[in-house]
Amino acid sequence: MVKVVKIGGNVVDNPVLLNDFLKNFASLEGPKILVHGGGVMATQLQKELGIEPKMIEGRRVTDAETLRIVTMVYAGWCNKQIVAKLQGFGCNALGLSGCDANVIRAEKRKPVVVGGKLEEAGELNLMTLDYGFVGDLDSKSVDAELLLSLTERGVTPVLCAITHDGNGNLLNTNADTIASAVAVAIARVQSSELFYCFEKDGVLYDKEDDDSVIPELDLAGYEVLKKEGRVAAGMIPKLDNAFRALDAGVGAVTIKHAANILNTFGTRLKA
Amino acid sequence: MVKVVKIGGNVVDNPVLLNDFLKNFASLEGPKILVHGGGVMATQLQKELGIEPKMIEGRRVTDAETLRIVTMVYAGWCNKQIVAKLQGFGCNALGLSGCDANVIRAEKRKPVVVGGKLEEAGELNLMTLDYGFVGDLDSKSVDAELLLSLTERGVTPVLCAITHDGNGNLLNTNADTIASAVAVAIARVQSSELFYCFEKDGVLYDKEDDDSVIPELDLAGYEVLKKEGRVAAGMIPKLDNAFRALDAGVGAVTIKHAANILNTFGTRLKA
Repeated sequence: MVKVVKIGGNVVDNPVLLNDFLKNFASLEGPKILVHGGGVMATQLQKELGIEPKMIEGRRVTDAETLRIVTMVYAGWCNKQIVAKLQGFGCNALGLSGCDANVIRAEKRKPVVVGGKLEEAGELNLMTLDYGFVGDLDSKSVDAELLLSLTERGVTPVLCAITHDGNGNLLNTNADTIASAVAVAIARVQSSELFYCFEKDGVLYDKEDDDSVIPELDLAGYEVLKKEGRVAAGMIPKLDNAFRALDAGVGAVTIKHAANILNTFGTRLKA
Repeated sequence: MVKVVKIGGNVVDNPVLLNDFLKNFASLEGPKILVHGGGVMATQLQKELGIEPKMIEGRRVTDAETLRIVTMVYAGWCNKQIVAKLQGFGCNALGLSGCDANVIRAEKRKPVVVGGKLEEAGELNLMTLDYGFVGDLDSKSVDAELLLSLTERGVTPVLCAITHDGNGNLLNTNADTIASAVAVAIARVQSSELFYCFEKDGVLYDKEDDDSVIPELDLAGYEVLKKEGRVAAGMIPKLDNAFRALDAGVGAVTIKHAANILNTFGTRLKA
């Protein structure tokens, strides 16, 4: 059973929470893979450089300058800090972006036309939604054999949210999507389990009440919660990813606080 | 014969020169390892962030904020851009910092007391030279077996100038030193050859005349050049490193223009 653990940007950005999490993660037994975000720190560096972050439905619009920034933050500072700390805790970590040994190859998202058409001349008109250097992927994008050859040698891959297109271009990719694609790709060869760790205790029945964690949730229950408007907007893509992963053969998916990686507290999703 | 190739920051910073170099490097036959700098881009990001770079004898003084910047630039933007481009040219590159799989472990440089003493209370007095988070290393710091296990599987390691101390801390390390330490470590297991590639054609007999490249140089000849003041200040640590590498068993060392990696033009050093 390979554990695929994702930690969000709010954990990576909090030195105390990150340190505690990495100490616990290092002591997790068995083969494991870490996937991390870093959005909070990317936004912070954008602001330090006088750039106003542009987001569409929670996704960062990535022009050339933003690609430079997210690559520096995710693949550079966040990834290497995490790897060095894991090494300090006795875990033989290896940081990877998707370009490294071609472990994750993604496809650049095409501009989406909203209520309009692309100009024939190739110019963007006002109705075109262009995310820029953003990569989309699925489980076939992931070289599971390579990741498993590392875990079998006692190496723990640490993946950041930068991928490539195979033609020399880096792409900014959603870390939740990477985590589920990796877990699904591994599930086709061995069994895998997926953990989404963040700064909340799990899926809450009442968004305002941190004590209202739902211990188990199936797809039907999730649909009801969505209809009742109980699911926070940011949680919807995470849960959609999670249920798709379960459907695609991942053994278990749990949404939990980063501080609880060694215990069972959190929301366990059921197919 | 494993080829260890180092490219300097002035090459990495020049998109046309970098692209041409990487295209040629990708077509180099046999096992190979790339080591890259990125100092020009680190200085540029420091200035964008309103930080004045501090250098002592050409080495960057690395406080916590500077460590964040060099890690972002070297391990993030430079390393991943290079790896993605090599993948685009059909070379299966894998980017590494020293912390990754513990491939290079360095030691933090201790503050040097110049004409004075460290205060007993641990405070620094005016006579103390502290480079900050700078790592020193030798060939024993390098896991040559790991690098060779990669090259034997057709993977090309791409090393940046960030290492770690094994206790959770990243360190800024000179890329020339990394290249020679890697070549020496490999020479103990297999044969290796070292190439220092930069934006000049080789060691010049006349600093002002780019056409005065010395085709072959031995240690005695180098000493004469130094005495005559013919060697540019920035070349001295590079050449010192190079002659030490030859002395420690590296088969050949060549100093050459990045555009000449596929031909023999440049300065070949002799023991």
